[in-house]
Amino acid sequence: MENGSEKWGFQGKQEMNAAAAITVRGVLNMLMGNLNEDDSRPVIPLGHGDPSHFPSFRTSPAAEDAIVDALRSAKYNCYAPTVGILPARRAIVDYLNRDLPYKLSPDDVFLTSGCTQAIEVAFAVLSRPGANILLPRPGFPFYEASAAYNCFEVRHFDLLPEKGWEVDIDAVETLADENTVAMVIINPGNPCGNVFSYEHLKKVAETARKLGILVIADEVYDNLAFGSTKYVPMRMFASTVPVLTLGSISKKWIVPGWRLGWLVTSDPNGILHKYGIIESITGFLNISSDPATFIQGAIPQIIENTKEDFFSKIICILREAADISYNRIEEIPCITCPKKPEGSMFVMVKLNLSMLEDVNDDMEFCLKLAKEESVIILPGVAVGSKNWLRITFAIEPSSLEEGLARLKAFCQRHAKKQ
Amino acid sequence: MENGSEKWGFQGKQEMNAAAAITVRGVLNMLMGNLNEDDSRPVIPLGHGDPSHFPSFRTSPAAEDAIVDALRSAKYNCYAPTVGILPARRAIVDYLNRDLPYKLSPDDVFLTSGCTQAIEVAFAVLSRPGANILLPRPGFPFYEASAAYNCFEVRHFDLLPEKGWEVDIDAVETLADENTVAMVIINPGNPCGNVFSYEHLKKVAETARKLGILVIADEVYDNLAFGSTKYVPMRMFASTVPVLTLGSISKKWIVPGWRLGWLVTSDPNGILHKYGIIESITGFLNISSDPATFIQGAIPQIIENTKEDFFSKIICILREAADISYNRIEEIPCITCPKKPEGSMFVMVKLNLSMLEDVNDDMEFCLKLAKEESVIILPGVAVGSKNWLRITFAIEPSSLEEGLARLKAFCQRHAKKQ
Repeated sequence: MENGSEKWGFQGKQEMNAAAAITVRGVLNMLMGNLNEDDSRPVIPLGHGDPSHFPSFRTSPAAEDAIVDALRSAKYNCYAPTVGILPARRAIVDYLNRDLPYKLSPDDVFLTSGCTQAIEVAFAVLSRPGANILLPRPGFPFYEASAAYNCFEVRHFDLLPEKGWEVDIDAVETLADENTVAMVIINPGNPCGNVFSYEHLKKVAETARKLGILVIADEVYDNLAFGSTKYVPMRMFASTVPVLTLGSISKKWIVPGWRLGWLVTSDPNGILHKYGIIESITGFLNISSDPATFIQGAIPQIIENTKEDFFSKIICILREAADISYNRIEEIPCITCPKKPEGSMFVMVKLNLSMLEDVNDDMEFCLKLAKEESVIILPGVAVGSKNWLRITFAIEPSSLEEGLARLKAFCQRHAKKQ
Repeated sequence: MENGSEKWGFQGKQEMNAAAAITVRGVLNMLMGNLNEDDSRPVIPLGHGDPSHFPSFRTSPAAEDAIVDALRSAKYNCYAPTVGILPARRAIVDYLNRDLPYKLSPDDVFLTSGCTQAIEVAFAVLSRPGANILLPRPGFPFYEASAAYNCFEVRHFDLLPEKGWEVDIDAVETLADENTVAMVIINPGNPCGNVFSYEHLKKVAETARKLGILVIADEVYDNLAFGSTKYVPMRMFASTVPVLTLGSISKKWIVPGWRLGWLVTSDPNGILHKYGIIESITGFLNISSDPATFIQGAIPQIIENTKEDFFSKIICILREAADISYNRIEEIPCITCPKKPEGSMFVMVKLNLSMLEDVNDDMEFCLKLAKEESVIILPGVAVGSKNWLRITFAIEPSSLEEGLARLKAFCQRHAKKQ
């Protein structure tokens, strides 16, 4: 056997490991590994955005029934067209067309395996050697990972806490150059819990148009808005600038595990077609995996049959949870919240380390909190904001109160003596 | 507004469109576009490998029940770990460990969104600038598309019809060099319908070891073998050479639309770990989409509860369909079949164009066949073998007879006058 020397012609990819390292899941797993096993209290997960296993957040019976009906029909065991089946695309476009000053067509809708794959598609299609993309800071680190994998240069613009987490428009203008292809906004915001106003989105659209870049609007928290600012979809401004909307049923129906998302092109002026983007999206989907066909088949019934009271109940729970979080955090001297959350499932708060005795940064804060209080909170460094914290309030209300009480006790215990 | 000139900083990717152009679906769609709408007879689809909508091929009730149970439990609406949930990985590894001389662990199993994503993962992880990969000809063109997207140089080795579609081992040795990372085999074979013998697979393993390349074994037709050659999984030889097994429930349970597949590393000598491949697989999965969690949750019950009589019924139908196809093709002078199919859902047959009057190649044959007889057959050029045809026999038996009769009539009508 010539290969006694064990020399093999393959090898792993360092850059892939690096790209994947900067994920929320990675940090949360590390924190989970730091729990104290002798603490008999339940772990309180204020770190991740998946409340699906809490009883209060169980999805609507209509959505479950729709899946069962689609499955039992045996009409959807087959492969689907790579762009998705037409009835699902039609149902989604009807859903998105509400209140829109122009009308999208089913051809504008591409079904994806969750919002995750919608991001993959957008980045794979838009990246090219030397190109750069503008990402928000703080943000959702999957974008950074996907950019790294696609060899996109990332340039960060800040979201401004003192302006309710609005985009620093001046920074966007300064950062962009002839190699910038797009900017990403997440609305309602992850991690900040903000909702952009109509006026602000209009300004974003006008800036993007001036710079000749498109807007990728992550609206996965679409309609999870419960504050005073009305949620407006970015596609309202598509006659100013082409918009790629990324969305899914994951958050609104509280079923992230169903992996059904979409990428929607909003472009009444036909610019994306002219620049070959539509063709490349179709091409990429031809060589990618699809969401399960019977879940696609259930979409029309999921959208049609879910009663409004399901959504209003979820919104009501989230509004109360946001209130509780904001009020409890107000009582903790070393943590400040610049803006009460109005949407999504998160709030960003700032650590005042000078008030703490033996905590040097946000990561140490979260590691000690996990160890001492069995509470998991995401350190801001994981979303681009060192010495901030991202707190999820979308958990069972009783657990939320308990988690915030433990957070307060932890801060009191570690406070500098006056 | 400065962007009056409509100059935008983004553009589509020609290379992506090119990569995606060479798919079976693309060719089949073109043929479907060539049907004669005035023909009142039903279209007979002998072109694609998805029999799920035929009554004889309906999936097992146990599999449907497993999905409903997993869904109704509400335990699987959540995100899953990126490698897949443990009970599903465990059930799959138990399924794959049968008859294996060593034991795989659940850690060797990575769940993917169908076999499609398993290919994506393997190619994304193994490709690097200047690297090449050895693919079979005829083959499954998704590999060529995925290679093009990942900038892999493709080198083709022939499958030899005169040797029952065995791999041309000498060609493999000639093609490989220091930049070759892997070779792909598909067993049971798509498009050839062959099943490799134990002895031949052993030779493949020894050759790959000598060359220092790994073997990617596409076993999506795992156990759809019904001839005299016993199906042997490639992982039987993993102590000789590391093996990546690609599989799914798509074909065995006739549910390609459920998008549940796997990539399994078989490597008792730990070479893949040493060369960083395992880490890169995990890394890539961290930035990719997952199969739906409740479908993962159903896997243990799907595997455990599906009765053997479901599989034996499918095997029986396929065996009879292969017999019918082989016998009917024998009766058509201008088409020869070098090897009666023993597995998968396909048979490759050779066109003798010199016996036909007004047909210049396989594509023209298939276009005219679609137009005149409403029968869809895949031209061999789509799978790398010009002037061959790939015929699917996995359709409702009555339709198969009708389709082959129309094929015969077509050939008689176009035969050269003696």
